[in-house]
Amino acid sequence: MNTKSVKDIWKAIEFGEWRKPTSGLAPGYTQANVVILPKKDAFDFLLFCYRNEKPCPIVDICEPGQVAPPVAGPDADIRVHVPKYRIYRHGELDKEVDDIKSYFTEDMVTFLIGCSFTFEKELLEKGVPVRHMEEGKNVPMYVTNRQCQSAGIFSGPLVVSMRPIPAHLVDKAVEITAPFRKAHGAPVHIGDPAELGIKDINKVDFGEPPNIKEGEIPVFWACGVTPQMALKNARPELVITHSPGYMFITSITDEEIARL
Amino acid sequence: MNTKSVKDIWKAIEFGEWRKPTSGLAPGYTQANVVILPKKDAFDFLLFCYRNEKPCPIVDICEPGQVAPPVAGPDADIRVHVPKYRIYRHGELDKEVDDIKSYFTEDMVTFLIGCSFTFEKELLEKGVPVRHMEEGKNVPMYVTNRQCQSAGIFSGPLVVSMRPIPAHLVDKAVEITAPFRKAHGAPVHIGDPAELGIKDINKVDFGEPPNIKEGEIPVFWACGVTPQMALKNARPELVITHSPGYMFITSITDEEIARL
Repeated sequence: MNTKSVKDIWKAIEFGEWRKPTSGLAPGYTQANVVILPKKDAFDFLLFCYRNEKPCPIVDICEPGQVAPPVAGPDADIRVHVPKYRIYRHGELDKEVDDIKSYFTEDMVTFLIGCSFTFEKELLEKGVPVRHMEEGKNVPMYVTNRQCQSAGIFSGPLVVSMRPIPAHLVDKAVEITAPFRKAHGAPVHIGDPAELGIKDINKVDFGEPPNIKEGEIPVFWACGVTPQMALKNARPELVITHSPGYMFITSITDEEIARL
Repeated sequence: MNTKSVKDIWKAIEFGEWRKPTSGLAPGYTQANVVILPKKDAFDFLLFCYRNEKPCPIVDICEPGQVAPPVAGPDADIRVHVPKYRIYRHGELDKEVDDIKSYFTEDMVTFLIGCSFTFEKELLEKGVPVRHMEEGKNVPMYVTNRQCQSAGIFSGPLVVSMRPIPAHLVDKAVEITAPFRKAHGAPVHIGDPAELGIKDINKVDFGEPPNIKEGEIPVFWACGVTPQMALKNARPELVITHSPGYMFITSITDEEIARL
């Protein structure tokens, strides 16, 4: 599968040949979180993303009814090229589906939001270890005491992911991730978890507990769960997202995304 | 006037004591272009700005009906703190007014868009000459052959401003302006005007003709006239802007804007 082009992968997904998480699929191509909303809520959500750029970096936005993300997949169809979708109504999960053809009207606006997969690969390649990847685990995530700037119906706390980094490599980790504005960019906090209101670093809110070794510093990046919590809080009539782990594979390479 | 605080200046404007262009007023504070639209057109315009970040850098956005820009003037009232406004209906200038209290409903959304005043000051301070300022003229501006990415009802060409820079200072000018993402950032083009479709550099579309001296290279930056042309093309029912030169003075310093 990995040697196929992004277009082949989209087709495989469309024809039901790939109904699994997308991690490791199409290496070198940026994966994105998917949020699809009716137009009446789209301005508020776009404003929320604009005001909270680090946790909600927008990779692409479609116009109402537009199915092909103009930057991230001009040949894609967002209704069928994600392996699994979730339909939320008034903030509650209604169902999980394989395509959204029957939900996607002329009124629906698609947002693609960057994810940290992109910079994790870069960290590894440049010699900065990424613990949860080494251990085949999910990244530890925490709800912080920092509030996002609210926008219309959307509000909520900043959620962060944490990667323990050897002290002498922290500067390098900052330097490597900073250019990835569209994938959460530089860390939001380095060191003492208490400053983010995290009382016990071993008690995660999402993901799996960390394994912090001696001489390592906890480094915190803004996390894509932030907009998900804001969506849950806002309880809009209808939201469609990808299912966790079943992301949209864009036709943007990781090299290109660093320049966006 | 220059020694007064930004709040004093807002008050002076509110009480009719300052009904003049804002150039040179409140040195060190960022000035911004003002665009106010009904909510129904706000998503399209925000999307246009997002897709065309260089010509349309958003400094702040208010929610519908909100009169105080949360980042750029939390104590300001956008209805009375701009010295002169223009009311456009269906793309045509309807009238020029001193305040917009009677036009500003709960439905109106305010956008503040960055301007190159900010980086011009920085260029001067760091030893890069800015010709039109030396000569007390308006900057030369050109409509290019590059199209903006359209968004909903908004589309149009990229408009650029030009500053002739001595060849050995061009790199420095790029370096100085690049961090000012919220004020058009790095140049969009350096050198041959023909590559932007500009046939005669002495024939400007806006502003005043340039004076390019020997050994100088024309350097082109994205220009805030770009969103104005897109607004004119879209002919929305109602748009309120500042009158040219009568900008909104924000409470953001030029040092702060470089970090936004």
